Amino acid sequence: MAKKLGRFTYVMENKPSILSYGSVVSKKEGEGPLAPYFDVINQDSSFGEKTWEKAESQMEKEAVEKAMEKIDITPKKIDMVFAGDLLNQCIGSTFGMKGFSIPHIGVYGACSTMAETMALGSIMVDSATAKHIIAVTSSHFCTAERQYRFPLEYGGQRPPTTQWTVTGAGAVIIGQGNTAPYIKAVSFGVIEDKGIKDANNMGGAMAPAAATTIKNYFIDTNTTAEDFDVILTGDLGQIGSDVLVELLKRDGYDISKKHQDCGLLIYDRERQDVHAGGSGCGCSAVVLTSFILPSMRAGRIKRLLFIATGALLSPTSVQQGEAIPCIAHLLDIEGE
Amino acid sequence: MAKKLGRFTYVMENKPSILSYGSVVSKKEGEGPLAPYFDVINQDSSFGEKTWEKAESQMEKEAVEKAMEKIDITPKKIDMVFAGDLLNQCIGSTFGMKGFSIPHIGVYGACSTMAETMALGSIMVDSATAKHIIAVTSSHFCTAERQYRFPLEYGGQRPPTTQWTVTGAGAVIIGQGNTAPYIKAVSFGVIEDKGIKDANNMGGAMAPAAATTIKNYFIDTNTTAEDFDVILTGDLGQIGSDVLVELLKRDGYDISKKHQDCGLLIYDRERQDVHAGGSGCGCSAVVLTSFILPSMRAGRIKRLLFIATGALLSPTSVQQGEAIPCIAHLLDIEGE
Repeated sequence: MAKKLGRFTYVMENKPSILSYGSVVSKKEGEGPLAPYFDVINQDSSFGEKTWEKAESQMEKEAVEKAMEKIDITPKKIDMVFAGDLLNQCIGSTFGMKGFSIPHIGVYGACSTMAETMALGSIMVDSATAKHIIAVTSSHFCTAERQYRFPLEYGGQRPPTTQWTVTGAGAVIIGQGNTAPYIKAVSFGVIEDKGIKDANNMGGAMAPAAATTIKNYFIDTNTTAEDFDVILTGDLGQIGSDVLVELLKRDGYDISKKHQDCGLLIYDRERQDVHAGGSGCGCSAVVLTSFILPSMRAGRIKRLLFIATGALLSPTSVQQGEAIPCIAHLLDIEGE
Repeated sequence: MAKKLGRFTYVMENKPSILSYGSVVSKKEGEGPLAPYFDVINQDSSFGEKTWEKAESQMEKEAVEKAMEKIDITPKKIDMVFAGDLLNQCIGSTFGMKGFSIPHIGVYGACSTMAETMALGSIMVDSATAKHIIAVTSSHFCTAERQYRFPLEYGGQRPPTTQWTVTGAGAVIIGQGNTAPYIKAVSFGVIEDKGIKDANNMGGAMAPAAATTIKNYFIDTNTTAEDFDVILTGDLGQIGSDVLVELLKRDGYDISKKHQDCGLLIYDRERQDVHAGGSGCGCSAVVLTSFILPSMRAGRIKRLLFIATGALLSPTSVQQGEAIPCIAHLLDIEGE
């Protein structure tokens, strides 16, 4: 079973293994620098469906299918699926997963979902409660825009601080096994509300939550940035990344040489007009499951700190003048 | 650690204990038959806040405070809070919980949330991953109506199959201890889609999911209705309850003498004009934490099967012509 260390951290005792993973994206992501690494690049962002919401569900389904296919496992062998997304009532996940008949644990962590689902699943596997779990999440540019911002047809101007919601879904299968990468520890975040109200600058809003969770993990485990090859945040984008590095520097931690952000890896900001970078639950999910985890298998990354951040706002909370509460969950993942 | 039994069930080995609970409701619930049992009945359904959404968050906060107060425990001693609600992006929970600074695990299970949060938390405590967890959820008639149906001011007619969303929040603290009631086992449901499309008959839509989860539990554990004093569903209301009993009868299980439904217990249907009964995440949460758990402590209920069902639809999925996928999670709870 996982052993608690400090206030926030759970150290795995039986090294749950990331046995497989699948990544599905659409056209724009397929034109970015990570194009060679995705399992599926569908040029049609509707994925053959009649609505974007159904397309998002379809992506989750395909990501899970890809992950299962690679290790030749059937849904019946999966004890639980942990799934969530950004859509109201998480319909991306529920409609995407319903066909598998796997016991379903719906989570909501906004863009922290990939870390939240993987952390919960790791604990289940580590304690031998479950043999195999799936963690999956998704986002879709078109569903997110119309739900959180404006109908696409309206053609609203996007301020330069905004990020571009990734159209993609990523899934991992965690289980008992002797295959690197392994989950070494996980850490759950607390909700932070720093009074930031600009819903067009999510990276900036989420950076303090990432800083807190990383700092807490360094304290709980007596580590520093030097102990990791890569410190990978979910989707802070350029502005949030700058804020994160600065905030941790003030606390005496220099992560500048180790830090990467999925929102900056997935698109070419010079060429692709995504403003501050990529975002959405799918952003960290597809970067992790395409580019990062294979790099760990290949031995190029030996120890990874993965921190996904979530902005826990809703259009209603913004309209009511509330600030944006944020959260970050973390996994410490090691290679061979 | 929890031991898997059959496909869906996890049997606890260390009997996680329900150490405390808190329930907060408003005027209408306070006029119903369970009035003597709630911790807080606030006649003002805005709970002193400027919006109904903020009122819902305030209820969750008060329910957690009540639960902590009763056993004199501080937020620092709580390892994790599992929280969710019906609102878009679960703002009822995130805004309600943010002040406590407890590591936050957001879940989405619609009206199955109380069972989902308690089941996850029980596994964490059973495996000694966590010492104390909080499970909390809420619903509010006014937030639910405007989000899922019509603005209250519109005064829409409600068909007789509809249920009345409970304004209330319930919280439990589960921990290692020697106090009944204990969690004996938990069971996670799969998502079922029976093609039911009438969003004004949630009880009818959710009944098949409840039947499946109960039947699976009977099979996994080799039990029948006779083994339990009460089989308590979350919020099926009158129509869903009738369907549930009938569906299980066809499978050879007669639960008619043991079955109760939180949605039928909370209001007086003759007097309170709630049509088919109560509903919402808060429904099972407040009935459990006010009337049921104290009855277990007093020895009046010795073994309880608690099944909360969730309708995993959204207004968008309904508008797009989708049927209503449903889920049910279960806890087997025993007294002394």
